[in-house]
Amino acid sequence: MNGAQALIRTLVGAGVGVCFANPGTSEMHFVAALDEVPEMRGVLTLFEGVATGAADGYARMAGRPAATLLHLGPGLGNGLANLHNARRGRAPVVNVVGDHARSHKRLDAPLESDIDALAGTVSSWVRRSLCTSDVAGDAAEAVAAAARGAVATLILPADVSWEDGAAVADPVAVRPAPRVADAVVADVAAALRSGEPAVLFLGGDVVAGEAGLLTAGQIAAGTGARLMTETFPARTVRGAGLPDVSRLPYPPEMAMAALAGTKHLVLAGATRPVHFFAYPGVPGTPVPEDCTVHVLAEPGEDGVAALQDLAGLVAPDAKPELLEASRPELPAGQLTPRALAAVVGALLPEGAIVVDEALTSGVGLDELTSGAPRHDRLALTGGAIGDGLPMAVGAAVACPDRPVIGIQADGSAMYTVQALWTQAREQLDVTTIVCDNGSYAILEGELDRVGAGGGGTRAEQLLRLDGPALDFVALAAGMGVPATRATTAEELADALRKALAEPGPHLIDAVLPGRG
Amino acid sequence: MNGAQALIRTLVGAGVGVCFANPGTSEMHFVAALDEVPEMRGVLTLFEGVATGAADGYARMAGRPAATLLHLGPGLGNGLANLHNARRGRAPVVNVVGDHARSHKRLDAPLESDIDALAGTVSSWVRRSLCTSDVAGDAAEAVAAAARGAVATLILPADVSWEDGAAVADPVAVRPAPRVADAVVADVAAALRSGEPAVLFLGGDVVAGEAGLLTAGQIAAGTGARLMTETFPARTVRGAGLPDVSRLPYPPEMAMAALAGTKHLVLAGATRPVHFFAYPGVPGTPVPEDCTVHVLAEPGEDGVAALQDLAGLVAPDAKPELLEASRPELPAGQLTPRALAAVVGALLPEGAIVVDEALTSGVGLDELTSGAPRHDRLALTGGAIGDGLPMAVGAAVACPDRPVIGIQADGSAMYTVQALWTQAREQLDVTTIVCDNGSYAILEGELDRVGAGGGGTRAEQLLRLDGPALDFVALAAGMGVPATRATTAEELADALRKALAEPGPHLIDAVLPGRG
Repeated sequence: MNGAQALIRTLVGAGVGVCFANPGTSEMHFVAALDEVPEMRGVLTLFEGVATGAADGYARMAGRPAATLLHLGPGLGNGLANLHNARRGRAPVVNVVGDHARSHKRLDAPLESDIDALAGTVSSWVRRSLCTSDVAGDAAEAVAAAARGAVATLILPADVSWEDGAAVADPVAVRPAPRVADAVVADVAAALRSGEPAVLFLGGDVVAGEAGLLTAGQIAAGTGARLMTETFPARTVRGAGLPDVSRLPYPPEMAMAALAGTKHLVLAGATRPVHFFAYPGVPGTPVPEDCTVHVLAEPGEDGVAALQDLAGLVAPDAKPELLEASRPELPAGQLTPRALAAVVGALLPEGAIVVDEALTSGVGLDELTSGAPRHDRLALTGGAIGDGLPMAVGAAVACPDRPVIGIQADGSAMYTVQALWTQAREQLDVTTIVCDNGSYAILEGELDRVGAGGGGTRAEQLLRLDGPALDFVALAAGMGVPATRATTAEELADALRKALAEPGPHLIDAVLPGRG
Repeated sequence: MNGAQALIRTLVGAGVGVCFANPGTSEMHFVAALDEVPEMRGVLTLFEGVATGAADGYARMAGRPAATLLHLGPGLGNGLANLHNARRGRAPVVNVVGDHARSHKRLDAPLESDIDALAGTVSSWVRRSLCTSDVAGDAAEAVAAAARGAVATLILPADVSWEDGAAVADPVAVRPAPRVADAVVADVAAALRSGEPAVLFLGGDVVAGEAGLLTAGQIAAGTGARLMTETFPARTVRGAGLPDVSRLPYPPEMAMAALAGTKHLVLAGATRPVHFFAYPGVPGTPVPEDCTVHVLAEPGEDGVAALQDLAGLVAPDAKPELLEASRPELPAGQLTPRALAAVVGALLPEGAIVVDEALTSGVGLDELTSGAPRHDRLALTGGAIGDGLPMAVGAAVACPDRPVIGIQADGSAMYTVQALWTQAREQLDVTTIVCDNGSYAILEGELDRVGAGGGGTRAEQLLRLDGPALDFVALAAGMGVPATRATTAEELADALRKALAEPGPHLIDAVLPGRG
């Protein structure tokens, strides 16, 4: 058995059954070995950023890693931005990065580069397989390293892949998330009993399932603490029958207002909130100066159990307030971001996966979908735009029986627009709504916010997507995805209904104010 | 004057007048400052790989660096592959990578990442500007560092950009390329006088201008040495009136055949040839074991002067054999790679810039354009595919009066297809011929070459671009580039004539055998 065959069989044995790939010459033995291991599904992408973003989306929904197959340093480089997002969202991903044969490394061939350095910037675990007999064991360790919520990168020299003498390795046991010490829970309980204004700040695994949210709701009901999540949780279960949990707003002034007066900020699965960016004269964090931050559970610890322990201490008999089922009315007339959100809220199917890379066009989306049937929302964890279309690929591969709806900013869509082709090739049930405002609208706001506003025409031109306007209907058609344009709320509703009723991918170009 | 203003003025003063940009929040002061320095042309790209590839193409044609403006680590990550190509081709590029304000770094905001480590993998010079009073001086040094044929990366914290107290810095003098010592030239002269089979192996600056090629031709005429260039020279001046210089072939067996029997391999501006990849049982280099490699001029040394010195010793009165003007006849009927090359050869205008990312579809292109009017060819230096469409952007910005013709493989085109939008926005005179064979044809060959062939359907599917077929006409239209499809040689000729006669960008989808 050659190295590639043992590697793939080991991945499959460890529960990794999908590989999002964009291979090159150094990966040809891996590609050939795919034929012999039908349990591994190879999914071709036309750009590595699609492969890594798909692995991110897959991991968030499947709860286990997919593999990526990337071609040397430039292939890994192309995938780095979405690996950054995966890292920030603690999504498990196993990268297999092909490299030159060991004998070829010292020759400084044109594709030679420092793969190890690149991998280190996004990976919690990096290993270069140095001989064929090691590669399966390395792969098993990579899966275990990823499984705890990390990017693991295995660098695979071509000859390690093609030489014989490998054997399949057993899976490496994954240690469960550690429990939080009782003393920590007791300290938080004391803070909540003080009666001072408190916020339970939730994130990570705590908001990815019902148990965490319901327990947090119980604590809120029993103590008066408010509930809030981090701004961009990797995965949030939402909808009627769950507590109403707002997100910490993105704009610094709104984030500071949201936390104003808070004396105790209790982190459960989330990290300490900071502003996305610094702004002249603005503090770096929205946490009030006189607020005490309590770390109930760090990301990676068992935050749900910690909340349950805490609830037992401070609110054993409380019942969470739950959202009733409600949907907005279907709007009519002009298509605004809020009307777009209302259409989504009105039509969102049970069990949908909402991939939210709407950015400025997402106004009202949280509110108008909060009482919808139960669904999951995936957010842009690391701020590296271009995760939405690929994440939708991965989510749909992970959950083939659930509809995926992408709410997608136009500028960000163009980063990894190649994902549409993979949606078509795999006939994934993804409906992408492009929020087509013809600009990097978030940057138009940021230009003012950083105090650099009053910008002239030349600055503005660097933030506009018109001249020429992008035609997303044509772009989708060019990659085999049926597409239509909606210029009114009614047209959007019609298009969305139709897309949801048909199998396979669809794209709706939602023309919003601002588009030239 | 704030840091951003001083930075831009310093760049302009040092001869950097174009900035290929994809900015984010941390770059807003740079964007605002563009309004105040009209000498700096900001060119928006929709993806960072387009910005860096454009800077590469610009540098190759202008002979001086452009700047890029990139958004933190993920933005640099997206641009890395084409910076890899720039590094391999020794193209001067100055990256300005925005980063968080200094006060914000320790907060580990979502977009925090190790920019310095990423930058180090592609840059010969990396600096983080640590205070506003330094930034202009840092920029001047970056330009000088790049000017000698390197990628220089300046990391610019947002507050260093927005704070006042900066002043424009004077350009830093660029040292000319060092001369090669006489003793080295004499040694090479002795080798050539031996009468043993010799090859002058040319690359870099030596093939970018007429002087180097003519002098090499003189030496060949006087000594019997053969002329050959590296496989993928950054820029080669070509056409009638120049010596006939073939490229070292890409496939290992053909490369070894090309150098078989050579006893002296004289490197002038090129590095020692190695195969792009290792293959089982094949040596890593095409250089025969009993061949002596002589380094006449390393890349970065004055290779043209070294050749002139050498010619004075071994062939003072020889006249180079020069190619006569000749064009292939316009072909008819089926559109094959060779027919495509013949159409290009028949119609290539004087002064054209040919951006060659044809890969397997480039068969015959060298031969059938060798007697065409004088033109430049830009090749894929580093093997990181997706440089073609962006390089065409940069070449057209550098040389607005010259037609740019991209011969572009389909799979590679999809890596950075967003470049078409910038071609439309800037109304660049670029004609892209997509070699549309519906597959990663090079990998289909490589699967066999590495001995992994006989691959089954699942392996093959990972190398095919059909199911669905890409519609490049629709993709181009979606980004504002007029496009047409050619299925015969006559249609291609008609489309190319029309595209060359009209200003602005065009795309021709040349349907080749293999497309489903």
